[in-house]
Amino acid sequence: MPKSRSLKVAFQGERGAYSEIAARSFFGDDVGLVPCESFELAFKKVETGQVDAGVLPIENSLAGSIHQNYDLLLKHRLQIVGELNLQIVHNLIANPGASLSSIRKILSHPQALMQCQNTTAKLKGVQIVSTYDTAGSVKKIKEEKLLDAAAIASELAASIYGMHILKRGIQDNPENFTRFLVLRRKSAPPPPGANKTSLVFSIRNLPGALFRSLSVFALRDIDLYKIESRPLHGKPWEYFFYIDFAGSTSDENCRKALAHLEEIASFMKILGSYSRDKRTFS
Amino acid sequence: MPKSRSLKVAFQGERGAYSEIAARSFFGDDVGLVPCESFELAFKKVETGQVDAGVLPIENSLAGSIHQNYDLLLKHRLQIVGELNLQIVHNLIANPGASLSSIRKILSHPQALMQCQNTTAKLKGVQIVSTYDTAGSVKKIKEEKLLDAAAIASELAASIYGMHILKRGIQDNPENFTRFLVLRRKSAPPPPGANKTSLVFSIRNLPGALFRSLSVFALRDIDLYKIESRPLHGKPWEYFFYIDFAGSTSDENCRKALAHLEEIASFMKILGSYSRDKRTFS
Repeated sequence: MPKSRSLKVAFQGERGAYSEIAARSFFGDDVGLVPCESFELAFKKVETGQVDAGVLPIENSLAGSIHQNYDLLLKHRLQIVGELNLQIVHNLIANPGASLSSIRKILSHPQALMQCQNTTAKLKGVQIVSTYDTAGSVKKIKEEKLLDAAAIASELAASIYGMHILKRGIQDNPENFTRFLVLRRKSAPPPPGANKTSLVFSIRNLPGALFRSLSVFALRDIDLYKIESRPLHGKPWEYFFYIDFAGSTSDENCRKALAHLEEIASFMKILGSYSRDKRTFS
Repeated sequence: MPKSRSLKVAFQGERGAYSEIAARSFFGDDVGLVPCESFELAFKKVETGQVDAGVLPIENSLAGSIHQNYDLLLKHRLQIVGELNLQIVHNLIANPGASLSSIRKILSHPQALMQCQNTTAKLKGVQIVSTYDTAGSVKKIKEEKLLDAAAIASELAASIYGMHILKRGIQDNPENFTRFLVLRRKSAPPPPGANKTSLVFSIRNLPGALFRSLSVFALRDIDLYKIESRPLHGKPWEYFFYIDFAGSTSDENCRKALAHLEEIASFMKILGSYSRDKRTFS
C-alpha cells in the first residue's frame, strides 16, 4: 500500500512510546504516526478528523485504570473499535559510550520508575528523576548528549533514537500489561467479530440501583469483564459506572440488555463494540 | 483533659494539611498531631502503636478515589472506626508584605493546582510549580522568605505559619469534598452507632460472580454506597473490589450477608464498621 494512503494514528508521548508499539501492533508498521503531547490532544485529533484513529492506554495490570482516559471517553464523541493488551518490557537505555558505572541519574515517567525499583535501588548514588514520558526521556538524554544519565523506556525507543540498552527487561514484575483502546470517530456499525462492549452509565441514588443495573446482564447470562467507578462532578458521592461486557451491540441479546439498562439508568452512553484481545504479547 | 493524656493522631502532610483539619474535627483541637511524610508512614505508625489513630483521605468528590490508600488498607491490619467529609476550601497564601501583583510563582500539590485553574489562569506571567504538599508549600515560602511566590492551601496553614491570605476560596468548583477515614489498630467491636461497613474481596473469574457477590446485599435490602475496583497484582485483569454498605457487623442481617459473601469470594477482609458522615462541612 503506498505510504500516502496509510492511516494516520494519534498517540500520547514521543516516538518510541509504548502507545506507538500498540498502534503499530494493531495497524501495522506502515501506519502514519502522530505523537501528541497529551491524552486530550490525541482525543481531539481523532474527533476533528485530523487523524483516522487514536490508540490510548486505559488500564495497567499493576497500576490500575488510567482515569483521565475514562473521563475523556465520556467527554468526546468517539467509538472504541478495538483493544490490545501489550506486555510492558522496560529497559535501561543510555547513549553509546555510557556504561552502567557512569550512570548518576535515571529519568522516566513516575509509573515506569515505580515498576523498576528493584533494579534502580541496587545502583548506588543514582538520582531518580520523574519526567512526563518514557520515550521522551530517551530523546532528552540523546539530545543533551548526557553520558551520566539513563532513561527507562521501550526497546523501540532505544532503536528509534540510536541508543544503547544497558540492561533489558528491568521491570520488577513480569506480569505487567497495559490495555490500549483503539478509537475512531462515531459512525460505523461494530466491526465484524466484535464480542466485547464498553459503556458508561449513571443511576439515581436509589437502594439497590447498581444491583438492578447489573441484573440486566446477569439475567441474560452476559458476562461482565470489568466495572469501574468515577465521580460525578457537582454531585458528591455519586458516580459514573464504566462496564465492559461480553457481546456486541449487533447481538439481539445485548440490545435487549441495553434497552433494559436504559429503563434503570439516568444516563447511558455506549462507547463501542469491538473484538476482545485475549492475547498477552510483548 | 491534660495534654499528656490526649490521643496521638498521624496524618500525611505538614502541619496545616487538610488532613489535620479532618483530624481535629474528628478528635477535637487538643489532639496530639503527628505529621507524616507519606501515607504509608502514617499507616505504619498506627499499626506499630506509635500513635493511637490515623486520619487518611480516601476519596475526593472531583478527583475520585485515592488508590494508594485503598491498597494500603489491604496491606495493613487496621480497622476503620470513623469517616468524615470535609469541604475543601483553597486559599492563595503569601508572606505578609507580598501582594497579588508581586506574585510570579504559585506552589501547591498538583491536585490543588488543578482545582484552582480558573483563578491561576487569570494571573499573567505566573509560573505554576507542583510540590508534594499544600501546607508544605506555605511552610517553604515562609522559610525561604519568598515575596514573589504564593501557595495554595488551607486557612489553617496560613494561620499556623503566620501567613497572609491574598485570596480566599479560589477553588473552581465549590462542590469539592474529601472523605477521610479514621483508622485504629484492629481489636475493638464496632463503635456504638456504627451504620456503615467497608470491606474488600476478590472473586474467582466466573461468569456472573460479581453479580452474585452483590446479591448477598440486595437479597437482604442492604444498600451499597460505593464500589471500587483495584488490580490484583500478578493476575492481569482480575480485581479486588472495595465495597461500602449500609449497616454494621454487629447487625444480624449484615453478619448473614457477610457469611454468604464468604461462600462466593475467594478472599474477603472486613475493614471496619463505623458511623456514616452525612454532613458536608468546611
